[in-house]
Amino acid sequence: MIEKKISEYLENAHEIFLPGVSLDVVILGYSENAIRVLLLKLKEYNLWALPGGFIAKNEDVDAATHKIVKERTGLEKLYFNQFHLFGKTGRNASFLQESSHAAKLSADARNWLNQRFVTVGYFALVRIDQVVPQPDILSEACDWLPVDQLPATILDHHEIVNTAIGHVRRQLNYFPVGLNLLPERFTISELQRLYECILNQKMDRGNFQRKILKLDILVRLEKLKTGGAHKAPYLYRFDRDKYQHKIQHGIGFI
Amino acid sequence: MIEKKISEYLENAHEIFLPGVSLDVVILGYSENAIRVLLLKLKEYNLWALPGGFIAKNEDVDAATHKIVKERTGLEKLYFNQFHLFGKTGRNASFLQESSHAAKLSADARNWLNQRFVTVGYFALVRIDQVVPQPDILSEACDWLPVDQLPATILDHHEIVNTAIGHVRRQLNYFPVGLNLLPERFTISELQRLYECILNQKMDRGNFQRKILKLDILVRLEKLKTGGAHKAPYLYRFDRDKYQHKIQHGIGFI
Repeated sequence: MIEKKISEYLENAHEIFLPGVSLDVVILGYSENAIRVLLLKLKEYNLWALPGGFIAKNEDVDAATHKIVKERTGLEKLYFNQFHLFGKTGRNASFLQESSHAAKLSADARNWLNQRFVTVGYFALVRIDQVVPQPDILSEACDWLPVDQLPATILDHHEIVNTAIGHVRRQLNYFPVGLNLLPERFTISELQRLYECILNQKMDRGNFQRKILKLDILVRLEKLKTGGAHKAPYLYRFDRDKYQHKIQHGIGFI
Repeated sequence: MIEKKISEYLENAHEIFLPGVSLDVVILGYSENAIRVLLLKLKEYNLWALPGGFIAKNEDVDAATHKIVKERTGLEKLYFNQFHLFGKTGRNASFLQESSHAAKLSADARNWLNQRFVTVGYFALVRIDQVVPQPDILSEACDWLPVDQLPATILDHHEIVNTAIGHVRRQLNYFPVGLNLLPERFTISELQRLYECILNQKMDRGNFQRKILKLDILVRLEKLKTGGAHKAPYLYRFDRDKYQHKIQHGIGFI
């Protein structure tokens, strides 16, 4: 049944989809002190891939992105950043020809797999605990892997993930981060640890605390319950209105 | 001769170029207190268009961008920001079919013009006085037009220009700007006027001066020669090393 669906997909792809363009989505989450990316493990290959796909001839690229992400993660209404087009020569889906399905394909379908395509990259930041990963019909697993220990992937998917991380890093200069990555309540140390993971470097504790409080996006709550109460740090949550205002207006130079 | 070249271009386009993808370049300059964009006026239409084109099947997208910009502006070694892919349905080159050349085309070539394509947008900031605009074979004029008074354009080129301006605006939060837009020597008021043009809003004079000097990217030179010498403002130039350092490392929150 699934085998038949894959063959049908490959056989009809050249009729259904826009030639020359695909999309890939870097869905990033944060857990156990690591930035993680949602990857699919392709059946029949020992390779991983970003969630992604082709764009139907009558479909906007943004709409295709929402559809693909919903299929893979169950998440709707995600905010995506479209961040880069990867346009080097030699990008094609000919690796799919090594699958057992490809031998059965028509010449048209095989030819389509061999054509070069560019891909447009999107990223989204999500709470890992709100996602139920869903392997697609070409995949046998869908999992959150740390971005600093990526497995072997198809095509230029390493470059796509690393470019997305670079964009998130630059955004720290003009957007707050954390609302979609941390639990509802957190300590400033936990927020600092998130920034350090994104930047892949240590930050000065006092300096970070001063800068982040100056942004005026945090609401102080009660102290964290620990054994030695006098040393317990405060918990905070984001003030959503102020956070959104900073997302709209930026926090940088101007 | 030129007529023949256009027909040949259109006739062979489907053989030479990647289907489904084009590129457009928003080349921005600054003169007479206005941010200006380089636009081409298409022959036979009363419509303007961004410099742009299709990508050869064996050509990287970035390489195609450099080639097209060199053809239109004479500029080499420009730094481009790839900023967005425009992927709505219904984008195609069928408007070219209204030209006198199109009637002579083969069915294949006409079909190619009717196919939807997405476009990837690049922008570059240039010194207008260093550019010699070159109309291409499809155009009768190539000129610098103010971005706040755009003429009628093909396709979604208004949206592409405005999206590029939005990116330049956001970049003011984490990159310095001016090195490629202002003359070698300038007053702080002139630099402020550039920022105001990009932001399309007035800035406080004292506040701007304090922030821009704090960036430590300016070298103070002699006073501007004016009639009343005691009121003359200082001239400045950028310290290129420090400027480049800020371009590398950002000037924002972190």
